[in-house]
Amino acid sequence: MPRVVVLRMGHRPRRDKRVTTHIGLVARALGADGMILADIKDRGIEESIRRVTQLWGGPFFVRTGEPWKEVIKKWRSTGGLVIHLTMYGLPLEDLLWKVRDRDLLIVVGAEKMPGELFEAADLNLAVGHQPHSEVAALAVFLDRLFGGAELKKEFKNKKLRIIPSPKGKKVEKIG
Amino acid sequence: MPRVVVLRMGHRPRRDKRVTTHIGLVARALGADGMILADIKDRGIEESIRRVTQLWGGPFFVRTGEPWKEVIKKWRSTGGLVIHLTMYGLPLEDLLWKVRDRDLLIVVGAEKMPGELFEAADLNLAVGHQPHSEVAALAVFLDRLFGGAELKKEFKNKKLRIIPSPKGKKVEKIG
Repeated sequence: MPRVVVLRMGHRPRRDKRVTTHIGLVARALGADGMILADIKDRGIEESIRRVTQLWGGPFFVRTGEPWKEVIKKWRSTGGLVIHLTMYGLPLEDLLWKVRDRDLLIVVGAEKMPGELFEAADLNLAVGHQPHSEVAALAVFLDRLFGGAELKKEFKNKKLRIIPSPKGKKVEKIG
Repeated sequence: MPRVVVLRMGHRPRRDKRVTTHIGLVARALGADGMILADIKDRGIEESIRRVTQLWGGPFFVRTGEPWKEVIKKWRSTGGLVIHLTMYGLPLEDLLWKVRDRDLLIVVGAEKMPGELFEAADLNLAVGHQPHSEVAALAVFLDRLFGGAELKKEFKNKKLRIIPSPKGKKVEKIG
């Protein structure tokens, strides 16, 4: 199975905490193997995502405070592709075939990304060319990449599982 | 064309401002007609989404501070369906056929939704049964609903348009 890891850029500790947490949770829920938060060590983010993984299962890793250039360099040195999701890029739907069955580092950021990143990425891909949300772009990308199979993924070592229900909330405790 | 409107619940003015803005931008970018923020009047949210619509085109409406029960009641009175996106619901992929070609009010919320909402919705639908993000759930829902056509949508009365590019940022000014 190819590895898929999300690299989150541009996190400002106070302002972006919830959006970065959403990115981590989306990465996990929609089939990625882990998230790396670039440049800024943030134990709060690490803990909140680990807590979800402990309850709802894994495997899923989260690391923070790693310099983005090193993360990209290392990823490429093992033969992986670097995909930057940006509204300025080429249409996702035209280039998805290029990224299937490859190890992918998916870079998502805030409004202002360093120009170097556009050069450093193997592909700059757009989930639409309108301003919206890095959380949404990541979600649509992963859903297209995995073709919907990610929504059926079975997580391991979980303590909780949802029983799908037409009304209300049904949660099963495991073990 | 059926109407698609997003109803955002559970917004706490300070904490959720950015996530609510993301929801509004995703609604616009991925083909919905407008967003209503339930219960809380928030002019900051209204303005930031209107500014995007003025620059990048519309039509797209945003309203805030309307009581959620009234919004739902009114929607249903005109024959529209009310869809609540929740990890506890039935799998989206099994029920998408039921919602096509209908006017849809898509309700998205935070972690704790009132139990009444599960009853008030025509369908409680899950974009996966894992905790992740209302922004992501909305994005995947809209992408599946519109089958990708939403990423090609032409907006009207725009001042800016992106020229898709393999590297860097190309923006065209219009008019």
